[in-house]
Amino acid sequence: MVALREIVEQLGGELIGDGSLAIDCIEPLGEATAGAISFVSNARYRAQLAGSVAGCVIVAPSLRDEAAARGATIVTPDPYLYYARLTQWWAARMRPARTTGVHASAVVESSARIGRNVSIGALASIEADAVIEDGATIGAQCHIGRGARIGASTRLAARVTVHDRCTVGRRGIVHSGAVIGADGFGFAPDRGRWEKIEQLGAVVIGDDVEIGANTCIDRGALGNTVIADGVKLDNLIQIGHNVRIGEHTAIAGCVGIAGSAVIGRHCTIGGAGMIAGHLEIVDHVHISGGTLVSHSIRKPGHYTGVYPIAENAAWVKNAATLRHLHAMRERLRALEERLPEPPPPPDDPQRA
Amino acid sequence: MVALREIVEQLGGELIGDGSLAIDCIEPLGEATAGAISFVSNARYRAQLAGSVAGCVIVAPSLRDEAAARGATIVTPDPYLYYARLTQWWAARMRPARTTGVHASAVVESSARIGRNVSIGALASIEADAVIEDGATIGAQCHIGRGARIGASTRLAARVTVHDRCTVGRRGIVHSGAVIGADGFGFAPDRGRWEKIEQLGAVVIGDDVEIGANTCIDRGALGNTVIADGVKLDNLIQIGHNVRIGEHTAIAGCVGIAGSAVIGRHCTIGGAGMIAGHLEIVDHVHISGGTLVSHSIRKPGHYTGVYPIAENAAWVKNAATLRHLHAMRERLRALEERLPEPPPPPDDPQRA
Amino acid sequence: MVALREIVEQLGGELIGDGSLAIDCIEPLGEATAGAISFVSNARYRAQLAGSVAGCVIVAPSLRDEAAARGATIVTPDPYLYYARLTQWWAARMRPARTTGVHASAVVESSARIGRNVSIGALASIEADAVIEDGATIGAQCHIGRGARIGASTRLAARVTVHDRCTVGRRGIVHSGAVIGADGFGFAPDRGRWEKIEQLGAVVIGDDVEIGANTCIDRGALGNTVIADGVKLDNLIQIGHNVRIGEHTAIAGCVGIAGSAVIGRHCTIGGAGMIAGHLEIVDHVHISGGTLVSHSIRKPGHYTGVYPIAENAAWVKNAATLRHLHAMRERLRALEERLPEPPPPPDDPQRA
Repeated sequence: MVALREIVEQLGGELIGDGSLAIDCIEPLGEATAGAISFVSNARYRAQLAGSVAGCVIVAPSLRDEAAARGATIVTPDPYLYYARLTQWWAARMRPARTTGVHASAVVESSARIGRNVSIGALASIEADAVIEDGATIGAQCHIGRGARIGASTRLAARVTVHDRCTVGRRGIVHSGAVIGADGFGFAPDRGRWEKIEQLGAVVIGDDVEIGANTCIDRGALGNTVIADGVKLDNLIQIGHNVRIGEHTAIAGCVGIAGSAVIGRHCTIGGAGMIAGHLEIVDHVHISGGTLVSHSIRKPGHYTGVYPIAENAAWVKNAATLRHLHAMRERLRALEERLPEPPPPPDDPQRA
Repeated sequence: MVALREIVEQLGGELIGDGSLAIDCIEPLGEATAGAISFVSNARYRAQLAGSVAGCVIVAPSLRDEAAARGATIVTPDPYLYYARLTQWWAARMRPARTTGVHASAVVESSARIGRNVSIGALASIEADAVIEDGATIGAQCHIGRGARIGASTRLAARVTVHDRCTVGRRGIVHSGAVIGADGFGFAPDRGRWEKIEQLGAVVIGDDVEIGANTCIDRGALGNTVIADGVKLDNLIQIGHNVRIGEHTAIAGCVGIAGSAVIGRHCTIGGAGMIAGHLEIVDHVHISGGTLVSHSIRKPGHYTGVYPIAENAAWVKNAATLRHLHAMRERLRALEERLPEPPPPPDDPQRA
Repeated sequence: MVALREIVEQLGGELIGDGSLAIDCIEPLGEATAGAISFVSNARYRAQLAGSVAGCVIVAPSLRDEAAARGATIVTPDPYLYYARLTQWWAARMRPARTTGVHASAVVESSARIGRNVSIGALASIEADAVIEDGATIGAQCHIGRGARIGASTRLAARVTVHDRCTVGRRGIVHSGAVIGADGFGFAPDRGRWEKIEQLGAVVIGDDVEIGANTCIDRGALGNTVIADGVKLDNLIQIGHNVRIGEHTAIAGCVGIAGSAVIGRHCTIGGAGMIAGHLEIVDHVHISGGTLVSHSIRKPGHYTGVYPIAENAAWVKNAATLRHLHAMRERLRALEERLPEPPPPPDDPQRA
């Protein structure tokens, strides 16, 4: 339970209404209760504003009067960003305090270097020459390989694996089950068999990167796989060897990025998008979910390639016809040749 | 090795033939040996019946005479369901007895509440205030977060993670590598960077739910992610924050469900189906494998959206043509305008 | 740092140039430094050859003169294969020595059989009757179930799970987070609920198999799931129960293979390909990434089914038109009937 005033003191914004109002939760506008603080990030939800009983609503200047007529209001240029910072402040205040130190059950090799104010959880294993920088948190049952480095203030949830010589930057978050630095998938064919190409590179992850649960980032074959500062990766993503992902790109769940692809900065890739290997995507490209990118994209923009869903019976007919699409085009062309476009009437001013 | 009589005493059905027959395995009809019990669940496999040397075959009433002419038979209205129950009985009888107690190597915080008849495996870690209800099994190397609850008789395989405050109901099964309660993927854009939205909700899982290996279910942003009773999830599924999945829905492997999607009851989603966020799917909807659902589905039924496979050379031609499909439609329309459908003959009775 | 001569002594090939040249790394041709050994595996990269400052370049006989004019050269029939073997030799030489023995923190049941020269990492758990053959490596925090078997010289990275009675052959590599032997996804419907079919089979993996990070291979329902010798599986692959994969087939990341599919030998499946259940694919079939295989493939070849990517605005138009494709074909046919192909001119010699 906090007083509304405390929120504004911490996070700014213009408070309209009673600063002593008690706030006990953050809730979406549509279901907010009297003790809740909520927000309107999108004009679409404006209709819900008047009827909401939320204790306080965070709004943009354009909704100031409308919101104030209803009750306590915080006015701020970007209510969604304000909401994000509010959740951070809330989590820091409400969550149990972090304990520091090395849990007695963790196995830490003596040559590992452990910074100040580090927390290492139960049953974690930290191999020789690993470096855990100041303020980092290593969750229970994590595995940190030989010579790996975890940056200052980075937090690894339980059961994360960071393999030999891979590095994670500062202020990162890595979720459970993520595997950083498994071997890339590289083989040379040899008379019907596959000869392993040992993966000699590593993974280098920048600052402020978040990596989702059970996501895999493979080590490079010769050089490194590189994830730049500020990249956000959701769960169950596969990133192949030698991939490079530019600053502040965000990638949704179930995406696969094949080896040696280079993704630009400030891109977004929707869920289950698939990026083929050895291609390049420039900055500011947005790929729709479920789209396969099979060649380089050299122009910023929004790209899609998804088969549209339909009732199954309709799909059956259209998909069967799709197998004849090229032939249909030939038939269409043949018809056009037999029935040439008539010349325009001689006195048509539009066509003159 | 069991006598056929024991099976019928336990599971019911009408036994035709010698109850003392020794059964030593369950096998598919096509490869069943003389010591096996098998079943015909589908008329398609009827042809295999006469030639099978299986010791006993489970059949529906419609195949009673045909099966009895062959040898020992169990007649039951639903042979596939009978087979399912037989596997359960068989597993309970054949598998090594479960040991109860807390393994000496497990790390259990003193404030965790451990019920009666609980089994906690080697090197598991159980944090403060977690609740493990009666008869639950926590596999080796599992991690149970602070304040999480595992319901009575639920079984977690080795290396499962259940994060803080998440709950799993009764009689559930969670397979290895599953991650329940990682952060949802939520960020507010801020001048080209992403500001984290702390995920303050949890995951609430009902009774009789099965969750596959390496499947991820994210915690809600403000409220909870909810998986209702009887839901079955296969491996490597991604379920985003705030998703709700209705009772007895079954979802195959590699499916992704984006944040805030609401899936009805008794639905099925085929492998690698992808469900976009913030949409609703009503009860009794069946989505084919590989289909992307991009908008709400308000009518029960079977839906598909998959590009049909072909030999690569044919695909190349048709896919290239697909890029001109809209233009083809315009050309078709133009041709139709130049060649209007002839009027029906005046005396055509079909068209009158 | 090695002398070039040592490489050729170990791996063969014809050395042109100074055998005492010091090599300190392996690098791709385009970025190779003076201390590097590099290779040209593909005529595409020939142009980079003359300008490269690499200490030594591995080439095919066709490039011998061109390469030798530049500097030290190794000539070998298959430079890519030579490169693969070079990485193996390099890794064996440069990586820290493997330690053998059972880490004090590992939990090994007394009935488990541990071979000679085995390494068992920190916090691993090995259940009763498991067999770890000579020279095998069990990484930190692995879980080996009751009666499972890990073949000679096989290496499990940290945090691998191999469940009860499953077997991995010799000289295999299994990456972190892989789950071998979770239950297959099998249920019988019972009045709107799902009755579990206990999965009584196991997983049998041949020799020289590599399995990627967080990949799942489910145990068979009655028989076994079988992965033959020499198969290579990338990360985040799902393999359902009773699947059989033939020798030396290679499967890229994010692929799903549904239950009871049978895949031939020497096949390749591109990333995010999806194989439906209960079908058969013959030997030497190549499936493009992102393709859904919905029926058996009985002829070797290259198959594809991917919706082509486009700028979003173009996609919207074409995808909308696709919903009317079958109707377009009907309209095309109607036009053709109204405008029959003209007969050939009577004196056309081409058509006579």
